[in-house]
Amino acid sequence: MKINNIEHIGIAVKNLTETIKFYEDVFGLKCYAVEEVQDQKVRTAFFMVGQTKVELLESTEPYGPISKFIDKRGEGIHHIAYAVEDLKSTLDELVKKGVQLIDKAPRKGAEEMSIAFLHPKSTNGVLTELCEQNKKKI
Amino acid sequence: MKINNIEHIGIAVKNLTETIKFYEDVFGLKCYAVEEVQDQKVRTAFFMVGQTKVELLESTEPYGPISKFIDKRGEGIHHIAYAVEDLKSTLDELVKKGVQLIDKAPRKGAEEMSIAFLHPKSTNGVLTELCEQNKKKI
Repeated sequence: MKINNIEHIGIAVKNLTETIKFYEDVFGLKCYAVEEVQDQKVRTAFFMVGQTKVELLESTEPYGPISKFIDKRGEGIHHIAYAVEDLKSTLDELVKKGVQLIDKAPRKGAEEMSIAFLHPKSTNGVLTELCEQNKKKI
Repeated sequence: MKINNIEHIGIAVKNLTETIKFYEDVFGLKCYAVEEVQDQKVRTAFFMVGQTKVELLESTEPYGPISKFIDKRGEGIHHIAYAVEDLKSTLDELVKKGVQLIDKAPRKGAEEMSIAFLHPKSTNGVLTELCEQNKKKI
């Protein structure tokens, strides 16, 4: 498995609009995109911080995964996402090494990426996402 | 406030040695340093992932902050640390903007850095560290 960089840090928030304002006004970061990912029942906001993005996540449904996370633990850091080059073969390799997957095959994430989540039981409590960039660079 | 990049992601673990092995064998990352930070009652292990470090944190004391975190929430992502250029003036600016600080003045962190934590009550549940690199580059 080859990790290139931390693609993003996912942060669960109750109110996306208010939190975007905080990150812009207090942290001086610029929100460059807001996107709804229906598959994950979230609305997301992205900030570029050097090589890595901060991804704020607001649930679009009362029983979506982000709602459940906030109900249980409050707002906070939800997951870490690593950029890999070949997600499918990476998942195959991880299964062979005994890692439990949430997504057995790549699925569509935000920003046109293929993504898959590993189960935090296998990764010391850290919900870990792997991302493969699909955009072809011209 | 000017954030340059995400300096590191702090992850609370029960057993540093076992988790280093997992990050090396499964994630293919290389631990480049292990350091004890007495002030924070932790033993830390660092992995470079692109521009950002993953910092594993194991408590050295049963009632240290990492022990308390794990007792309450289990192992997992503990904090996010942003690199800033002038930590002292950044803290002054944040106080003026109403952000609650854990550390009112910079203190010594791992890797010869000056650090300060912001209170998660002010940052949507995200324990946030600010770091200023003190090493003079030759």
